[in-house]
Amino acid sequence: MRLTQQQADHYDAHGFLMLESLLDAEEVEILRAAFERDAKVPGPQVVAEDGGTEVRAVYSSHQRQPEYAGLIRDPRILEPVQQLLTDDVYVYQFKINAKPAFGGDKWAWHQDYLAWRLADGLPAPRQVNIGVFLDDVTEFNGPVIFLPGSHRQGLVREGRSAAARSEQHLDPDDISLTPQQLTEHVDRYGMTSPKGPAGSVVLFSPEIMHGSAPNMSPFARRLLIATYNDCSNLPRPKGEPRPEYVVCRDTEPLRPLAAPFSQTLGTVAA
Amino acid sequence: MRLTQQQADHYDAHGFLMLESLLDAEEVEILRAAFERDAKVPGPQVVAEDGGTEVRAVYSSHQRQPEYAGLIRDPRILEPVQQLLTDDVYVYQFKINAKPAFGGDKWAWHQDYLAWRLADGLPAPRQVNIGVFLDDVTEFNGPVIFLPGSHRQGLVREGRSAAARSEQHLDPDDISLTPQQLTEHVDRYGMTSPKGPAGSVVLFSPEIMHGSAPNMSPFARRLLIATYNDCSNLPRPKGEPRPEYVVCRDTEPLRPLAAPFSQTLGTVAA
Repeated sequence: MRLTQQQADHYDAHGFLMLESLLDAEEVEILRAAFERDAKVPGPQVVAEDGGTEVRAVYSSHQRQPEYAGLIRDPRILEPVQQLLTDDVYVYQFKINAKPAFGGDKWAWHQDYLAWRLADGLPAPRQVNIGVFLDDVTEFNGPVIFLPGSHRQGLVREGRSAAARSEQHLDPDDISLTPQQLTEHVDRYGMTSPKGPAGSVVLFSPEIMHGSAPNMSPFARRLLIATYNDCSNLPRPKGEPRPEYVVCRDTEPLRPLAAPFSQTLGTVAA
Repeated sequence: MRLTQQQADHYDAHGFLMLESLLDAEEVEILRAAFERDAKVPGPQVVAEDGGTEVRAVYSSHQRQPEYAGLIRDPRILEPVQQLLTDDVYVYQFKINAKPAFGGDKWAWHQDYLAWRLADGLPAPRQVNIGVFLDDVTEFNGPVIFLPGSHRQGLVREGRSAAARSEQHLDPDDISLTPQQLTEHVDRYGMTSPKGPAGSVVLFSPEIMHGSAPNMSPFARRLLIATYNDCSNLPRPKGEPRPEYVVCRDTEPLRPLAAPFSQTLGTVAA
């Protein structure tokens, strides 16, 4: 699937592009079931709630679940990413966040690429993120908020906070924009927050400034985020690389499936 | 000004009614200037940020500032309140909240009338609240979220939490709905959040379940809330009544001005 010129221009100008209801309801059900299954696989890739047992995030499900192995190669997703980035891309990071009811991430405003440059030595911001809504995203359940166009600034902040909690784990708080930086950029760019039904997909730049509202609703909200990286832009970590479930080691170029992932299940190895 | 039958029916059915841009830009400027002035009047009615000097809320400005004395008698506001409640009403409580940037109230979901019954012995939920937007209210700066129709439930919770911080000050946390209560009622009623330009006014029921999102933006957001009470429904506190700036003592019936407050300034004593 190719983006129209208008869609590609929108991504370039604003740093994100919303593809509403790209996946259908049946596909969303397939992906939810695969998430439930994957969340039960023991290992460090499953992140529990602070002080609880509820699953907050799962990493690298595409390495274990054929549905997600198919999804990242789905022509409706991979081809637009190739179009925006380059033909040879691979998945650098894959995670599914289950933002809990009555809470969830705070509003640390940041640019993703700073984290990846610091933690993984990623040479250039040659990535495209995709966010796949596994639940309806509304103004009430913790949508991502973008400063549209802010990706054209490049990185606003250079380093990380001195109080960072660990060398390898970069919390958004450690790399967040200062209130003054945010005020200046909100004045210039405004704020926008893509919302839509489950099955919608939002593509966004690794340099776009964004934050995340808390989930005011009594229901958890699941969001898949996969980051595609240019195969000629491999990470060069200074020390020990981060674990494989955080920074994927398989850097072979992905090739699009001939059909939507839901029609090819059984033919793709995870 | 009379509400249309459709507007009155909407209030009855949903527990709130939005009157977009009821006040014009010049009137908003007049009210903002009066707030700035009133926030400098020393006294317990000015509430500062925790650990800061920035003003978070000011109570009972209508007793000191002629602009607000006029506003509560403005025919565009007082007449709809009379229509929904009864002819003889007075202002029971008046406050202006300046929800700070990057934060503000948490999402304690509650029903106002429970607080007033517990703290002031208010016999019946014979009130109408008005919220006057002194700044644009968007999805990003901490809008109030209603469960539309939930006022028809009556009070869901009877008492206050055992850990309440003081006898007289009722924090929304002390009277908040449980997660289970909220889940059940969100399932039944859904959530909605009136937004609009500065000068908009929202009327809402003392029994509607509501919460408040944090302010994700870098700008403070000012909201005036005045609660009108039926003059035949005066509070009957069990012990010492709460201070006058919180629970107004002037219970004389209000009469509408002949014209908008902005045209009568100089003729109304605060």
